[in-house]
Amino acid sequence: MSFVRSVIPEFEAANQRYAAQFNKGDLPLPPGRKVAVVACMDARLDPAKVLGLEEGDAHVIRNAGGRTIDAIRSLVISQQLLGTREIVIVHHTDCGMLTFSDVELKTKIRDELEEDAEHIAFLPFDDLTRSVVDDIAIVKKHPLLLDIPITGYIYDVKTGKIEKVE
Amino acid sequence: MSFVRSVIPEFEAANQRYAAQFNKGDLPLPPGRKVAVVACMDARLDPAKVLGLEEGDAHVIRNAGGRTIDAIRSLVISQQLLGTREIVIVHHTDCGMLTFSDVELKTKIRDELEEDAEHIAFLPFDDLTRSVVDDIAIVKKHPLLLDIPITGYIYDVKTGKIEKVE
Repeated sequence: MSFVRSVIPEFEAANQRYAAQFNKGDLPLPPGRKVAVVACMDARLDPAKVLGLEEGDAHVIRNAGGRTIDAIRSLVISQQLLGTREIVIVHHTDCGMLTFSDVELKTKIRDELEEDAEHIAFLPFDDLTRSVVDDIAIVKKHPLLLDIPITGYIYDVKTGKIEKVE
Repeated sequence: MSFVRSVIPEFEAANQRYAAQFNKGDLPLPPGRKVAVVACMDARLDPAKVLGLEEGDAHVIRNAGGRTIDAIRSLVISQQLLGTREIVIVHHTDCGMLTFSDVELKTKIRDELEEDAEHIAFLPFDDLTRSVVDDIAIVKKHPLLLDIPITGYIYDVKTGKIEKVE
């Protein structure tokens, strides 16, 4: 049996340090910069640091791959109830979504968990630029989303730089 | 006509500053602390700052409300392909999800966008503690997710403190 140490004591200690110097208790609910960022959940990507976000600035929606089709619920709430009027998408190099196919993951789940995952689209991709182009297109044509500026970037985990996808 | 200034020039300038001091180009793909955080997209909540996460530490999945039922795809990928073995959920005070009902948002969309949103569950809630309890339960009983430690917190946007939901 392997013992895995929980992160909880460290998270709670870190939060005590954060709260001790916290001075942003008066920020309004709607994002100050009126933007929603959709980014990958990847551990190496910190959207706030990468884009210069302070507390109160932006909605940050994150999922595996930063896929917009998996962010529609959140984007509609962001636009309709909280006034965001711009979308920024951030995918990144060396993404885990480049390393498997939908069929492979479903087979692994069937083999190892003995469960059926046919009802889930895991949304991997094999071309990073294409994934950003596709995700911009999904947002642009979605009937529940507003016709507002959308910009897509690829973040390079080796250099810390974002590159715009045209 | 109102002119809304795009965030893009500011985001790109901030990224140049970030990249200029970037020294984390050798981090591995799997999260170093083997944890996936599920948190609300709220602009005032920066999970990395609140929990003391550095680049490379943790998957961070974010959506409106930090709802786990909307994070299953990402959590399965996180566990099955990238080795996370703990989940931390963060909802927060003054959440936008406390301010509307599913029916109200669907009516607003019908009135203002002239579109039907009946196919989307927007997942608002009226009890913050209950939303965390419910979201822990969803993860605990989901057949595609592993039986691993799960902790739920409520983040207080006025104080910067997290409080564990027991």
